[in-house]
Amino acid sequence: MPDYKTLLVEQVGKVAHVQINRPEKINAMNREFWLEIIEVFNWIDETPEVRCAVISGAGKHFSAGIDLQMLAEASSGMDQDIGRKAEAIRRNVLQLQHSFNVIDRCRKPVIAAIHGYCIGGAIDLISACDMRYSTEDASFSIKEIDMGMAADVGTLQRLPRIIGDGMMRELAYTGRAVDGHEAARIGLVNRTWSDHIQLIAGVMELAQTIASKSPLAIRGTKEMIRFSRDHSVEDGLNYIATWNAAMLQSDDLKAAVMAHMSKQAPKFAD
Amino acid sequence: MPDYKTLLVEQVGKVAHVQINRPEKINAMNREFWLEIIEVFNWIDETPEVRCAVISGAGKHFSAGIDLQMLAEASSGMDQDIGRKAEAIRRNVLQLQHSFNVIDRCRKPVIAAIHGYCIGGAIDLISACDMRYSTEDASFSIKEIDMGMAADVGTLQRLPRIIGDGMMRELAYTGRAVDGHEAARIGLVNRTWSDHIQLIAGVMELAQTIASKSPLAIRGTKEMIRFSRDHSVEDGLNYIATWNAAMLQSDDLKAAVMAHMSKQAPKFAD
Amino acid sequence: MPDYKTLLVEQVGKVAHVQINRPEKINAMNREFWLEIIEVFNWIDETPEVRCAVISGAGKHFSAGIDLQMLAEASSGMDQDIGRKAEAIRRNVLQLQHSFNVIDRCRKPVIAAIHGYCIGGAIDLISACDMRYSTEDASFSIKEIDMGMAADVGTLQRLPRIIGDGMMRELAYTGRAVDGHEAARIGLVNRTWSDHIQLIAGVMELAQTIASKSPLAIRGTKEMIRFSRDHSVEDGLNYIATWNAAMLQSDDLKAAVMAHMSKQAPKFAD
Amino acid sequence: MPDYKTLLVEQVGKVAHVQINRPEKINAMNREFWLEIIEVFNWIDETPEVRCAVISGAGKHFSAGIDLQMLAEASSGMDQDIGRKAEAIRRNVLQLQHSFNVIDRCRKPVIAAIHGYCIGGAIDLISACDMRYSTEDASFSIKEIDMGMAADVGTLQRLPRIIGDGMMRELAYTGRAVDGHEAARIGLVNRTWSDHIQLIAGVMELAQTIASKSPLAIRGTKEMIRFSRDHSVEDGLNYIATWNAAMLQSDDLKAAVMAHMSKQAPKFAD
Amino acid sequence: MPDYKTLLVEQVGKVAHVQINRPEKINAMNREFWLEIIEVFNWIDETPEVRCAVISGAGKHFSAGIDLQMLAEASSGMDQDIGRKAEAIRRNVLQLQHSFNVIDRCRKPVIAAIHGYCIGGAIDLISACDMRYSTEDASFSIKEIDMGMAADVGTLQRLPRIIGDGMMRELAYTGRAVDGHEAARIGLVNRTWSDHIQLIAGVMELAQTIASKSPLAIRGTKEMIRFSRDHSVEDGLNYIATWNAAMLQSDDLKAAVMAHMSKQAPKFAD
Amino acid sequence: MPDYKTLLVEQVGKVAHVQINRPEKINAMNREFWLEIIEVFNWIDETPEVRCAVISGAGKHFSAGIDLQMLAEASSGMDQDIGRKAEAIRRNVLQLQHSFNVIDRCRKPVIAAIHGYCIGGAIDLISACDMRYSTEDASFSIKEIDMGMAADVGTLQRLPRIIGDGMMRELAYTGRAVDGHEAARIGLVNRTWSDHIQLIAGVMELAQTIASKSPLAIRGTKEMIRFSRDHSVEDGLNYIATWNAAMLQSDDLKAAVMAHMSKQAPKFAD
Repeated sequence: MPDYKTLLVEQVGKVAHVQINRPEKINAMNREFWLEIIEVFNWIDETPEVRCAVISGAGKHFSAGIDLQMLAEASSGMDQDIGRKAEAIRRNVLQLQHSFNVIDRCRKPVIAAIHGYCIGGAIDLISACDMRYSTEDASFSIKEIDMGMAADVGTLQRLPRIIGDGMMRELAYTGRAVDGHEAARIGLVNRTWSDHIQLIAGVMELAQTIASKSPLAIRGTKEMIRFSRDHSVEDGLNYIATWNAAMLQSDDLKAAVMAHMSKQAPKFAD
Repeated sequence: MPDYKTLLVEQVGKVAHVQINRPEKINAMNREFWLEIIEVFNWIDETPEVRCAVISGAGKHFSAGIDLQMLAEASSGMDQDIGRKAEAIRRNVLQLQHSFNVIDRCRKPVIAAIHGYCIGGAIDLISACDMRYSTEDASFSIKEIDMGMAADVGTLQRLPRIIGDGMMRELAYTGRAVDGHEAARIGLVNRTWSDHIQLIAGVMELAQTIASKSPLAIRGTKEMIRFSRDHSVEDGLNYIATWNAAMLQSDDLKAAVMAHMSKQAPKFAD
Repeated sequence: MPDYKTLLVEQVGKVAHVQINRPEKINAMNREFWLEIIEVFNWIDETPEVRCAVISGAGKHFSAGIDLQMLAEASSGMDQDIGRKAEAIRRNVLQLQHSFNVIDRCRKPVIAAIHGYCIGGAIDLISACDMRYSTEDASFSIKEIDMGMAADVGTLQRLPRIIGDGMMRELAYTGRAVDGHEAARIGLVNRTWSDHIQLIAGVMELAQTIASKSPLAIRGTKEMIRFSRDHSVEDGLNYIATWNAAMLQSDDLKAAVMAHMSKQAPKFAD
Repeated sequence: MPDYKTLLVEQVGKVAHVQINRPEKINAMNREFWLEIIEVFNWIDETPEVRCAVISGAGKHFSAGIDLQMLAEASSGMDQDIGRKAEAIRRNVLQLQHSFNVIDRCRKPVIAAIHGYCIGGAIDLISACDMRYSTEDASFSIKEIDMGMAADVGTLQRLPRIIGDGMMRELAYTGRAVDGHEAARIGLVNRTWSDHIQLIAGVMELAQTIASKSPLAIRGTKEMIRFSRDHSVEDGLNYIATWNAAMLQSDDLKAAVMAHMSKQAPKFAD
Repeated sequence: MPDYKTLLVEQVGKVAHVQINRPEKINAMNREFWLEIIEVFNWIDETPEVRCAVISGAGKHFSAGIDLQMLAEASSGMDQDIGRKAEAIRRNVLQLQHSFNVIDRCRKPVIAAIHGYCIGGAIDLISACDMRYSTEDASFSIKEIDMGMAADVGTLQRLPRIIGDGMMRELAYTGRAVDGHEAARIGLVNRTWSDHIQLIAGVMELAQTIASKSPLAIRGTKEMIRFSRDHSVEDGLNYIATWNAAMLQSDDLKAAVMAHMSKQAPKFAD
Repeated sequence: MPDYKTLLVEQVGKVAHVQINRPEKINAMNREFWLEIIEVFNWIDETPEVRCAVISGAGKHFSAGIDLQMLAEASSGMDQDIGRKAEAIRRNVLQLQHSFNVIDRCRKPVIAAIHGYCIGGAIDLISACDMRYSTEDASFSIKEIDMGMAADVGTLQRLPRIIGDGMMRELAYTGRAVDGHEAARIGLVNRTWSDHIQLIAGVMELAQTIASKSPLAIRGTKEMIRFSRDHSVEDGLNYIATWNAAMLQSDDLKAAVMAHMSKQAPKFAD
């Protein structure tokens, strides 16, 4: 496992726990963070012994979002020509998006465990995760609107599919804070726990459950749900049929059927 | 009305009630079931006197999903060459999908009334229905993950549009059971009743209400909602305008307007 | 500000409040209404000093939907040839759709504040708004089904994305009434207030909040959420990157960052 | 091999030669033809020993298109209510389309060999084939326009991808005749031969060449080109990667590589 | 028929001939032109007696494209804030595009007859037409590249479907001139005539032929080909089936069938 | 400029000339090639002084396609479990595709200059280029079919848009050789030259012409044509309007307009 400056990574069984680790800055996302998040999720994707990942924040909060310094730089310098500067900004935004696309495309499920502030870029991040869980007192806010800009790292693309179109617009236009209770009600998180320790314990247990399943089946399931998000039902049905043409020849199906018949828990290779 | 081995079909007024009828096997879906489900919904589609359908389970449960025997066979025999075997599996999965596509495409609304177990393939089935209602003590589970495979008969394509992306992934990755109360909360069912008898009574009443409407209008409405699932708002608006170009010339609009003015219930031809 | 026969329009700060103003007809939508709604939202779109709009109903109800007279005419006269009549109907429906598309495409957020009846065409209207809020005793109904027709002015295309596929079909097939409490539960409205006065006060406050934000950022946010509704996540990410290539060069970002650092409220040009 | 009334079918090696066989009616497509075409291409699809199909016309012409009797019936009788009649017509058109979709979806390449008249419905038919070849004196015409209707069995959907948008519109608006020479120039046919005998000989030789290839590879290639017609480059790339995940494990790749190294012709199982 | 400053419009039988009429400016497209083109094609769309349109250039050339003055203004003034200026430019481009979208969406076929220069914006215009015909010595050039900009009024979106992707890029990157002969070879025009007089005579004859067909059938055909450009084959098949559900009930089909049987030319109402 | 083992790269003015440089192996694509092609086109993309690229083959041929050794390995070893092996193959194919996607997505136009053999994987490569030119005696062949597999590195996705659906299938099913003359006729290359020296001279001159244009305008043009390939006309129009909102504020437009007025050649910054 590599070493990171802005992240703390540990492997518990077959689960990788990634913590954003700049608590003195409310885990604000600086330039290094955006690079390291790519590295760690590529590592998770390619490490067979890791079957599921959890992402949380070290200290009192999940994250205050993008480092204000980076934002201020976005509108300065670079080039004198407006057209060339526009091209540079566009490529920079695409690069930031890539950091969270890596989470979205990671073949292993990624679960966000949120406590305290989850603001601006942090909403973009958790929107790219598979599921979200929080403490009761977590505080979510699409803060970009108060920075005079439209959010551009994924919130506006991914969150409507999670919380529905109506509430999405209210939160994006006003930037108002949502607590854990409301987050659960509108589908932003799947459930809440009362405090940080129970949250992490609960989410890690969930992650271990997922890690005990057939990794091939989990990866196929994630691929299919992601595909369905952007394709017709008919295209999705054709895709899983083609996918399973190979996967149903795997040992995992046989092992599971056999285990089921003998009422034992199946064991799946990485 | 034809005769079935795995289904019990009766017509009540203009409503067809289809019961999965292998209670001694928890209504597990065997090879015959997958063929008969096509037959019965083609019959419903083509019979003018049937305007709405209800599907439920005979005995103590809705259904335990695909017959384990069929699943075990999926990975065996057929061909020695991996490529040719893959092609055979792919075509077999497409064939199974076809059985529930027939429900999805049936021009008459199909309502699922669920009590007891609703597991694996049964979730695929109810995802293809128009609406879902259950008892409080129903138990839903995307069990495919515990069979070492990604669900491939429609759950992963249709359910995200019904319960949202966040909860979808939790249920698909873990296979955990959801009861009627939670099902109502996350939108998996529209409402619950306390027991099986009241469930069937309530759903049949709902079905009769639908059957009393203009069948042309109901069929147009179903077609439009299905189309909207996979197309842009603009494409959908153009489609209904083209559709209604003919349908607004029907007698049903005139009959309804006249009935409305004279404060009477309209009568619509089949 | 122009003058309208069926609408009452006032500007409060930077918010336009549009009232449907035929209370003696339960605000039924007559031919004039369909034209004036285009005019007023074009005016809102093009008036820099208006940054947000609210639409509500004068009198005791939001609106009873399309004027029955117009509906009755839809199926009569025009042409003797069925094909040519079909073409005329199709173009007429497209024209009616255009009236609400203007709301959907208006660059400024449009908020519906609903009390009393909200029926038939009124559901089409509020589906085209950004957000919906209501009184507890509001009464929503997709009444077209009882007119013997499939709704054709936007409900069937836009509402499934707001309330989900399952409840959508129940409401569209049955036309049953939904009150404010249930509307909030299923996501049809974001929240409710106890009476009309509080509703308008609450919604106007919300609108003023939105109007205080960077108008460029609000317009970009609305464009992105609308785009995401009909496009893949990847297309959406590319679009916002291209959009922000120019917009991050605006003064609004600088003003907001500076205000944030000096802990003051930013001021944005129209 | 089953027996047909309107078709003459023979198997030459691994190639099925289907002849439209109503020469005394210029091979006009009557009700029986539309059913038998489904049967024969389902048989071709499911018969492993058939790897490629050729379709041509018996007698002096390919086909004069849909039987005028069927067309005349399309606009008569059935139902008095315009809406219900519209529904019946729509379903009838979808049924006719299905007959040629079966050719389009047939896993084995289908080659059209055209001499003499190829008119109206016959253009719909050859548009659904994989490739088209003709004699110099063949005569093509999108004749539907002269029947007072827009072609509705596939020409307007499939042909623009074959001959380009500009020429497509000229031929569809005017119905003018195109001979073999021009057909080759605009891409409607791939090449021409001077007379019927040479045409059939040339096309059969081509079909035998295709039949000598790996049937798995041919089927995968057809599936990919069909998919690309309606999907983005990126979706297409992902699809072939998923498809070949199983297919590259087939014996055919090994056999071909080995044959190539030993400079021999490979033999592939059906 | 209204009067225009930049256009000369005459009606010949059921064909409208629109001439760009600023010969002293090589028919450069000034601000007035962009508005009048909307008016005239709306008039054509809504006038039943006009069934087909031809567009050509008065004087020695078709058109030199957008007025350089308008282009120069595009990059000047308006607003000091880069973001607000970007929004103004975007809306201006969308407005210009609208002028040619009106041609594209016009229900009657629009034929471009080109002689002399056809440059820059003129290529955008003819790309929005149904078909293109030219003199041998016509000269086509995608000149925007030499103005330091990517063409933004439709060339890059519509032309690839007409001339194919490979040649498209060469012409767009280099701006090199193409004469009538090459234009015919690559599909940019359907055919050429030797001089202007013969071109107009030939195209008007073609237009009269189209105007003699069933106007319902022509309009349906245009709608289908346009729809197919942007949708899957399956969506297109469903659309024509729904469209023809009404249109096959028209008198035109009956009239055409009857005329065909009695070997007479059918007469169709407007 | 970095150094490569399988490529020879030189910069001529603002044009990069990339030669595949394994002439003793007929430029077969080995494992190193697939990596270096990514590196070199990333370098071209990011080097402002390079505005256009040419790719050709060193020695007597363009390229014989993928190294047979790599193909043989594709079906061997890796994993005993069929499912896991399928996943590994799928990821490997996606990786190979990525090598040519880098060409497709490179912001600078990439021109293929082909002489001698252009076979199998080489067709995949040139399909990802912007334009193709060849000698008269070049020889093109979609050879994958003779390796018992469906081409999976881009040919089946990109080539149908270049040469049309009809000829595409013939070449893909038969693998037959096409010479330069036929390639020009079917649109596979834009034009031919008589020998290798003239080909390179002609293509380099074309590349220099492109390199003299505004690089911003060229990049915008490429982006738009690529986007149009996979999106609707309407989406494409909206995209260019948004793109040009920033780009028309660039100095390039002003410089070009000014140069045009003073009849001088404009100079554009990199």
